[in-house]
Amino acid sequence: MTAITLQPIGILRCDLHTREETPKNYDESEYTGTIEIYPQFLAGLEGIRRGDTIVVLFWLDRADRTVLRVHPRGDRSKQKRGVFSTRSPVRPNPIAISELLVEDITDNIIRVKKLDILDSTPVIDIKKKI
Amino acid sequence: MTAITLQPIGILRCDLHTREETPKNYDESEYTGTIEIYPQFLAGLEGIRRGDTIVVLFWLDRADRTVLRVHPRGDRSKQKRGVFSTRSPVRPNPIAISELLVEDITDNIIRVKKLDILDSTPVIDIKKKI
Repeated sequence: MTAITLQPIGILRCDLHTREETPKNYDESEYTGTIEIYPQFLAGLEGIRRGDTIVVLFWLDRADRTVLRVHPRGDRSKQKRGVFSTRSPVRPNPIAISELLVEDITDNIIRVKKLDILDSTPVIDIKKKI
Repeated sequence: MTAITLQPIGILRCDLHTREETPKNYDESEYTGTIEIYPQFLAGLEGIRRGDTIVVLFWLDRADRTVLRVHPRGDRSKQKRGVFSTRSPVRPNPIAISELLVEDITDNIIRVKKLDILDSTPVIDIKKKI
């Protein structure tokens, strides 16, 4: 098992600063913000257009990586289950997948809607939605 | 930009050994194989059942990380575009997202269907499908 090294391709800027105010999933969110892609990755954005839905992978830099069982959606009335059967941010490799609407894209700045991610979170990948 | 370190949680075993024989996406595949989760992460699987669709993140350890523009689906008749507007395996952080059908799960071994990933690829996360 060799360790794997990622490099952030950008960073999220938005008004979500606490877990309590952050929607649990993108499909429950109307929040907007901007993704700033670092200049050396700009060529990778070619083909992304306003109105697209993009799949964005975030590195949840404040998530606990040691927990393997959680109450689903943080609801303590529900029995704990394995993190891999949930969408909890808590997991050994805390990567979040969000499907976001592109409201605008200018150079290396993408304005997105449906955010479920805290401000200042690193972006590690963007993909076309299947 | 601090580097981020991932640890594989398991490994894929299947009969796909070359890119040519590997389907381009999970929604075009009927291939089966097994995911072996390393024992220290076993508790994280609790709640995954036969018949579930799971979202599996793979680390594409043989992908080129230096390319930012590609011909979509490798089709040279199409103009190159940015990797972030495609599902190409080639990208700065080569993480693949596959939605796989759980055919069986016994202890730390998950038999899955719809594979679009090469044999021996590290698994880095599993999530519930939204």
